[in-house]
Amino acid sequence: MEHGDWIRKEFKRLSASLGFRYTPRGEIEGRLVRVKKAMEKKDIEGLLVLQKMNYYYLSGTTQDGALFLPLEGKPLLAVKREFERARLESPLEDVVPLKSSRELPALIQNYFGKVPRTLGLEFDVLPVKDYFRYQALFQSSILRDASSILTDTRKIKSSFEIDLIKEAGKIGQKVYQEGRHFLKEGMTEIEFGGFLESIAKTYGHEGLLRVKSLNYEAYTWHVLSGPNGGIVSQSDSPMGGLGLSPAFPVGASLRQMKPHEPILVDFGTCYHGYQADETRMFSIGKMEHKLIEAYKACREIHDAVLDHTRPGADCEALYSMTVQWAEKLGYKGSYLGPPGLQTRFIGHGIGLELNEFPFLAQGQSYPLEEGMTFAVEPKIVFPGKGSVGLENTVAVTQNGYEILTPLAVEIFEV
Amino acid sequence: MEHGDWIRKEFKRLSASLGFRYTPRGEIEGRLVRVKKAMEKKDIEGLLVLQKMNYYYLSGTTQDGALFLPLEGKPLLAVKREFERARLESPLEDVVPLKSSRELPALIQNYFGKVPRTLGLEFDVLPVKDYFRYQALFQSSILRDASSILTDTRKIKSSFEIDLIKEAGKIGQKVYQEGRHFLKEGMTEIEFGGFLESIAKTYGHEGLLRVKSLNYEAYTWHVLSGPNGGIVSQSDSPMGGLGLSPAFPVGASLRQMKPHEPILVDFGTCYHGYQADETRMFSIGKMEHKLIEAYKACREIHDAVLDHTRPGADCEALYSMTVQWAEKLGYKGSYLGPPGLQTRFIGHGIGLELNEFPFLAQGQSYPLEEGMTFAVEPKIVFPGKGSVGLENTVAVTQNGYEILTPLAVEIFEV
Repeated sequence: MEHGDWIRKEFKRLSASLGFRYTPRGEIEGRLVRVKKAMEKKDIEGLLVLQKMNYYYLSGTTQDGALFLPLEGKPLLAVKREFERARLESPLEDVVPLKSSRELPALIQNYFGKVPRTLGLEFDVLPVKDYFRYQALFQSSILRDASSILTDTRKIKSSFEIDLIKEAGKIGQKVYQEGRHFLKEGMTEIEFGGFLESIAKTYGHEGLLRVKSLNYEAYTWHVLSGPNGGIVSQSDSPMGGLGLSPAFPVGASLRQMKPHEPILVDFGTCYHGYQADETRMFSIGKMEHKLIEAYKACREIHDAVLDHTRPGADCEALYSMTVQWAEKLGYKGSYLGPPGLQTRFIGHGIGLELNEFPFLAQGQSYPLEEGMTFAVEPKIVFPGKGSVGLENTVAVTQNGYEILTPLAVEIFEV
Repeated sequence: MEHGDWIRKEFKRLSASLGFRYTPRGEIEGRLVRVKKAMEKKDIEGLLVLQKMNYYYLSGTTQDGALFLPLEGKPLLAVKREFERARLESPLEDVVPLKSSRELPALIQNYFGKVPRTLGLEFDVLPVKDYFRYQALFQSSILRDASSILTDTRKIKSSFEIDLIKEAGKIGQKVYQEGRHFLKEGMTEIEFGGFLESIAKTYGHEGLLRVKSLNYEAYTWHVLSGPNGGIVSQSDSPMGGLGLSPAFPVGASLRQMKPHEPILVDFGTCYHGYQADETRMFSIGKMEHKLIEAYKACREIHDAVLDHTRPGADCEALYSMTVQWAEKLGYKGSYLGPPGLQTRFIGHGIGLELNEFPFLAQGQSYPLEEGMTFAVEPKIVFPGKGSVGLENTVAVTQNGYEILTPLAVEIFEV
């Protein structure tokens, strides 16, 4: 059978029977209206969207290609591979095959009667060599940075998007609830992490938590036991753990877990590209008093952030409030990391990527808005001993917040 | 306890006890000699290495920072996070703390008495916005593309590197051997994949198979059953599978596997950053005759490539030979994909990343060299029915090749 025939005949039915959800046309249209408003402000006549998650956000597919969005007129989705699938997945009307990006200028000229005077590109991720290539292809266009148009549009989530994050949150809930039964003395961190991951996969977790960055990597979980939880590593996180090698120096290691140690599990889940991030504590037998107290402090700080979460609350002020709170509770030298290594954020926006706006962080003074989603994660770190913490993912609602990770807040003691 | 004290006191012992292997000084020195030779040829006075795997390759650590390599003099490793760990992991002598990349020009000026006249950067991955930032920081320097210096140096592996790939290959062997016992009728593709992954993790598999690309993603495995193996998707691969959603449209899905179907498992493993890639077929009961015959053809093609693998063999010629071979065996319209969607490569270089040189592919006419490592993967695809194939990772030796994935070549029928 010919591939295209089979896709046209069978694909929708097969994918629907296995739970695929497609982005509705109205959803995409709403996003495009917001993007176009921002393009107009920045005097960008045409926007070329290449980065996978921006492209998915505005087209509904991640089949390889380029999305051209003119300020006036309908978007054009040009697909390299695989065309038939993209046509079924995307609600956009104009989907055409593309052999090489070299064809783009002619394609755009034919479709819109001109190439744009100003062309927006994603300077935050586009490699230099591609920039020079596009400059050579679009010689008459002025290239402009369109990164902030996309990050700004994406920071406000629709109810469709929040529903997908909730689905990811439900997977996370099952992971922790079922995973606790596997934990036992002598098991290695990585073995436990692997179990949790295999549970998550069974429910459709997509494995990668995408991050928009050159060097930050998509990664799904930390399992940090005892002293490993006290190790700061390469990531901008209160602690990173030992990891498996100098090439992968974060997260779970081959260390065997022992009774009474704090075991911090920071496990993110992903459903249809949308992520939920959460952290809970585990222990085999009781943790020592000092750590339980520190955990309670994290919970208090977590609750305080949520008490103040509503449209209009300033993101930097929320962060600063927690620093003062932690100090008051006696954790000045351990809150969000050891002295000299403390991170400067208590929350990060989350959606298709793990590092979206808003950041509840130093230097990020702007208001929360309805529809923003973020993970709040107070953590306390004791070098040589371990770390404790708590994390949930929430959405900002009209009057407050909604928790998208429904798992009970407790220490999973086995 | 202070974090730095603990790291200096405990880190080496702890990490060594859990099997961490560090890049020896002589290994790094040999790599630096080759890089400097290429820098001289390209008239690059100083090279700033930022991309994680290039940085690891030349420093031995992946702690966050920048590696400055002057044409004359010793390299300077400037580390943002975490400094103490980087100092223990890297055999380089000059390791200094770095707060922000803004400090780099002054740091380089102080250390070397000048900033380089020509500064090499990784144009193949460096985002445009960073390029402009570095141009503003190094106003007196001419920025040059150094991508090919790094890819060219990395394409020849040392015995140290080949040993690490072999370790990854041993993990892969255990994954397939132990994993076969889990496979049963009615299990979903993703559930089986999750099992395989959890086995791999137990042995220290690092979970991500890094790829150097804006949109290609680190990903560890495909489990494609029956018709799903006949679906071409966004990746440059003979088939991609259904995946879990439009946001993750490759690899295993929630489809339940049935008896007598071909189940193609393409599972890569990673040890200390080094990858081994392999593919084997599974089935529950016997596959149909047509598919077994196609699998035999893949095996014949696989063996033919290896028969011709030695220093001096032309990469494009090896690819072309297999296309003729497949045609002769009657697979003209199914070899490496369905008509119109066939990929143009039979092998890809592999090491710290999944897309290294050499490519045994159309348009890649250059000789194999001793120390190159690549995965060879003939696959045959029938839309609506499924795909079959075989893959191993090999090193080019003085007179031929060595297989680095020791798993027996067989169909795992359960």
